[in-house]
Amino acid sequence: MSELLSSYLAGSWFTASDEGRPVLDAVTGQEVCRVSATGADLAAAIEHARTVGVPAIQALTFHERAAILKAVAKHLTAAKDDFYALSTHTGATRRDSAADIDGGIGTVFSFASKATRELPNDTIVLDGKPETLGKAGTFVGQHIYTSRPGVAVQINAFNFPVWGMLEKFAPAFLAGRPSLVKPASQTAYLTHAVAASMLDSGLLPEGSLQLLCGSPEGLLDLLGTQDHLAFTGSAATAATLRQHPSVVYGGLELGVEADSLNCSILGPDVRPEDPEFDLFVKGVVTEMTVKAGQKCTAIRRVLVPADRVDDVISALSQRLSKITVGNPADETVRMGALVSLDQRDEVRKSVQALRASADLVFGDPDHVSVVDASAVDGAFMGPVLLRAHDGAMEPHEVEPFGPVSTVITYSSVPEAISLAAKGGGSLAGSLVTHDPAVAREVILGLAPWHGRLLVLDRDDAAESTGHGSPLPSLVHGGPGRAGGGEELGGIRAVLHHMQRTAIQASPDALTAITGSWFTGAERTVSSQHPFRKSLATLRIGDAIVSDRRTVTADDIAHFAEFTGDTFYAHTDPEAAAANPLFGGIVAHGYLVVSLAAGLFVEPNPGPVLANFGVDNLRFLTPVKVDDSIAVTLTVKAITPRSSADYGEVRWDAVVTNQRDEPVATYDVLTLVAKQD
Amino acid sequence: MSELLSSYLAGSWFTASDEGRPVLDAVTGQEVCRVSATGADLAAAIEHARTVGVPAIQALTFHERAAILKAVAKHLTAAKDDFYALSTHTGATRRDSAADIDGGIGTVFSFASKATRELPNDTIVLDGKPETLGKAGTFVGQHIYTSRPGVAVQINAFNFPVWGMLEKFAPAFLAGRPSLVKPASQTAYLTHAVAASMLDSGLLPEGSLQLLCGSPEGLLDLLGTQDHLAFTGSAATAATLRQHPSVVYGGLELGVEADSLNCSILGPDVRPEDPEFDLFVKGVVTEMTVKAGQKCTAIRRVLVPADRVDDVISALSQRLSKITVGNPADETVRMGALVSLDQRDEVRKSVQALRASADLVFGDPDHVSVVDASAVDGAFMGPVLLRAHDGAMEPHEVEPFGPVSTVITYSSVPEAISLAAKGGGSLAGSLVTHDPAVAREVILGLAPWHGRLLVLDRDDAAESTGHGSPLPSLVHGGPGRAGGGEELGGIRAVLHHMQRTAIQASPDALTAITGSWFTGAERTVSSQHPFRKSLATLRIGDAIVSDRRTVTADDIAHFAEFTGDTFYAHTDPEAAAANPLFGGIVAHGYLVVSLAAGLFVEPNPGPVLANFGVDNLRFLTPVKVDDSIAVTLTVKAITPRSSADYGEVRWDAVVTNQRDEPVATYDVLTLVAKQD
Repeated sequence: MSELLSSYLAGSWFTASDEGRPVLDAVTGQEVCRVSATGADLAAAIEHARTVGVPAIQALTFHERAAILKAVAKHLTAAKDDFYALSTHTGATRRDSAADIDGGIGTVFSFASKATRELPNDTIVLDGKPETLGKAGTFVGQHIYTSRPGVAVQINAFNFPVWGMLEKFAPAFLAGRPSLVKPASQTAYLTHAVAASMLDSGLLPEGSLQLLCGSPEGLLDLLGTQDHLAFTGSAATAATLRQHPSVVYGGLELGVEADSLNCSILGPDVRPEDPEFDLFVKGVVTEMTVKAGQKCTAIRRVLVPADRVDDVISALSQRLSKITVGNPADETVRMGALVSLDQRDEVRKSVQALRASADLVFGDPDHVSVVDASAVDGAFMGPVLLRAHDGAMEPHEVEPFGPVSTVITYSSVPEAISLAAKGGGSLAGSLVTHDPAVAREVILGLAPWHGRLLVLDRDDAAESTGHGSPLPSLVHGGPGRAGGGEELGGIRAVLHHMQRTAIQASPDALTAITGSWFTGAERTVSSQHPFRKSLATLRIGDAIVSDRRTVTADDIAHFAEFTGDTFYAHTDPEAAAANPLFGGIVAHGYLVVSLAAGLFVEPNPGPVLANFGVDNLRFLTPVKVDDSIAVTLTVKAITPRSSADYGEVRWDAVVTNQRDEPVATYDVLTLVAKQD
Repeated sequence: MSELLSSYLAGSWFTASDEGRPVLDAVTGQEVCRVSATGADLAAAIEHARTVGVPAIQALTFHERAAILKAVAKHLTAAKDDFYALSTHTGATRRDSAADIDGGIGTVFSFASKATRELPNDTIVLDGKPETLGKAGTFVGQHIYTSRPGVAVQINAFNFPVWGMLEKFAPAFLAGRPSLVKPASQTAYLTHAVAASMLDSGLLPEGSLQLLCGSPEGLLDLLGTQDHLAFTGSAATAATLRQHPSVVYGGLELGVEADSLNCSILGPDVRPEDPEFDLFVKGVVTEMTVKAGQKCTAIRRVLVPADRVDDVISALSQRLSKITVGNPADETVRMGALVSLDQRDEVRKSVQALRASADLVFGDPDHVSVVDASAVDGAFMGPVLLRAHDGAMEPHEVEPFGPVSTVITYSSVPEAISLAAKGGGSLAGSLVTHDPAVAREVILGLAPWHGRLLVLDRDDAAESTGHGSPLPSLVHGGPGRAGGGEELGGIRAVLHHMQRTAIQASPDALTAITGSWFTGAERTVSSQHPFRKSLATLRIGDAIVSDRRTVTADDIAHFAEFTGDTFYAHTDPEAAAANPLFGGIVAHGYLVVSLAAGLFVEPNPGPVLANFGVDNLRFLTPVKVDDSIAVTLTVKAITPRSSADYGEVRWDAVVTNQRDEPVATYDVLTLVAKQD
């Protein structure tokens, strides 16, 4: 008997009390492992996540969590060869495994990097700008995101045992939510190996990752308002989950990513001799054959102009005929096995259903010649292409989760859009065109039905990652049939795990709550210039109120001459008087901020290393000749960098004139040393 | 027999074929109207929304939709007196009616204004920054929001017949989605009056607003993936809706805003003599009595430090004793009637349930003396205050939808947070404190359980809008028991109605699709300086590539002296050499952008009226002595203002040095005339 996969629950490895169900190798049919969770204490696992995992992760800042993720990704990279070896049992070729294993690890790296660059080194996130709720400015609104005291349960599909876990784990971890991962049994041994490597690394705080290999029966009953259930799999199972009492009555949030009938459209502008024609054909064949078509983003529907259909089918058939099927460990093999014989039966059934309104134009679902493997023991199937009859419905409804696509013809762009929409919502779609007008019309027509859309042409082909690849920085998920969920998309995925709350308070209270300075809150002005303070002593609200400087006509004239910015509003009194907004000579905006810098700067070497940028600069009131300006600079946000001996300090800058009217407002961004 | 309320469906007014069910005046018990939709063709109404409403709204830009909303709000303002008169029948006092009627109209004004200021004058919205997906920059990702070709069905509660409709209609309309409004029968006559006024105004495109007075039976069966159902009401009905096949299988999006057990917490720092003590007491009494406590945001749980409970109960009781109950049309009356006798029975039942673990400390649910009305015919009930026993569960579970609150004691801040969380998710919570540390600990502890939180203190009290008022600019909705939905929150509410899609394409294709210029896309450089073009001829991608200018040591020294910005990196070679980022004298960032302006400006009077700001300025590479810089300025986005003869033009600016390294990147914001 093969090894019974253990589960990591409530702080220790658990092995089921029974023998478990066997999992067979997709290629050889031999037993790889057994899976069972009989006797597991799921309530203890959930309690462990909430009482041990939540406080452990939430004690860390986003940057600290990101550093752990980066270390985990490095750790997994070092163990990659082991994962590749296991992956072959799932029927995956080396290229397939790369999408899963390198794709998964790369996603963790990407989230670590994004979190460091785009999130504060803190535990809450400000959402949007402050909303002034009263004229005097004493009552202000600010939306914030906070971490939830709950667990993220992830029920994954068999086709991406590594990526599926990691792309869900990384954002949940960043958001402060521990994960309980439930892999699909069919490929659980690979998920188990990766999770064990992560757990063994000792890098993760205890409680932040648990693994359940085996039945999750009763698990959902334990979940509630602060928890999240992410499900990747069939629309039918998703429907069952949506009706679970924890979802219906208990406030459990459910995110679904279901298989969908993704389409690829050949633009009406593309002729067979255009480079886009080849790109289209290559793209379709790639999506049909990578992972033996077992991708929820694969192209199921091939939409082509009616007058190109023969060319397309001929080109696709020619290319498909070169696809060698067999043992994925063999380097000459282009397509491995489906994950199981059961799965192959399912795909054959789907092909049969499609044939009600489509003709087979390439391949044979029931026979395939295989390289270096047994066609009887392994779950092999060759690529199958169908051509839909006019008005066919099945190709928009039946999803063959294997190397199967259906060609559908259209006669006009609106018809193409309408056919695409018949899928009822998809994860991904693609359009191959080099006509900007076609790109705009098709993409805007398709967008309400899709989570991701690719426009492929000669310009981006070299760098394109293709129709089927979800990317960490772009949302993955689609409306309707695709499940209605949204994963990935960079920081968006992190925020989906957090609660957005509108806070209404005085500026001082908002400053205390958020750790960021709000306009109207107290400022600390001391004899020590804040540019003389390192991050060790600099505090939110530290400020400098500058002296005044009069802006003379000579200043303006000189600045115009010196910089070359001789715009008439600064140089020609008559023309400036005619300007509807100025009514006379005004100082350059750049002069105002340059003089403001002169007013607030501390010239000597000190902790402030550089001004690396300016945000949200608005010129609110023109500065006229002999107006006198002053500037107030206040520490608004401090972001120490984990990987450097300095951090970023964001200063609120307000330049006022002699009537105390705001002339310009902006944020000054500086790098400041951590220590003096 | 009173009037049978008509429905506006599929472009005309429909009157039911039967007599309908009577709706009674909350104060007098007399029949106000009858309600029925028997015989209504709901399928035709949904089809009308999709085929007439969708194209009509989506043909307009956000700014055009906003202008219509503003006109509608003005139109409704003029008819306000009629609505106030009808509102009295619901039991509402003048103050109650203001929250509903003025609150609703104000929300429409607010959305119109926000959309004009914060959305482009276009039909799609860019979400976030472009994501570079390949090193060469030929493959770029951009998230966009597009309008959905579906309908927004809104099932509203009885308590805000005007606000409830308008706060949902306005964002849906802005998002390009037609609305079908189904008011609660009990107060449908007021919704009907407002909707009729909107429809009669002729301001709205046909199909954008439909009204269903009567049973929505079968309506949900007609909805699917591109539609949205917004429900405000009980958690029980919400649970039923969640299980509807259109939601479970059909991809229908459901947004729920359910009643919740909102709490208000008196901070442990507040002594009876502090101003915050009075603010707390006033706040609780206001929330108990406004709308006779029939607000989903009302304070149901009053959390106070154990050692202050007697003071609080005494102060609340004293203030509650001044609440006069009776005919809301009488100016001396502070609290009107509940909406119906049935509703009063429900509240009495809830009080009875609460008494299992709480004592009545003020008021009598079964008897009340009323002013200028009949206590038998009107649905009157006086305010009722209870005090919970230690460990009581009912106050966290039973929601009396009337003038009823329960005082609960706590002994520590963590206990207060834990008690608040027992509500299982709330729409709104409040904290009264003047201690910043308390504010931070309580608010961050409460945030995961709340959609909105108010911190009330002496500083913001004068401008505070109070615990119970949702504001158009802040999100409304909460997790768990509160329904898990999110409404309002300014533009967030508009985007909730749109589909977010990641677009992957070449910069040129992205520019064509979005109408905004992307880095790497083609630029149009012509002999005519783009500053000489008005919006009539200026196009996305129009650009100027400037000459070069050498930045000399004299330039830097002179700029330092002239502006006063004598920071050592610009003036002291030795100190500058020691700076870890510069390693020698560098030009001021402000000098670089000032010289860049001199390089790109067109000095003569023309369509460019002003530079009103700069966004996202980043200094990427230091400019050293004798480096030579040039700037490229490209039209990135054009936003004509509907209400002015000019618009905003956003220019992409890139300053490079003699090695073509980017020195600074930023957006320049200008105002440009529509015509030459």
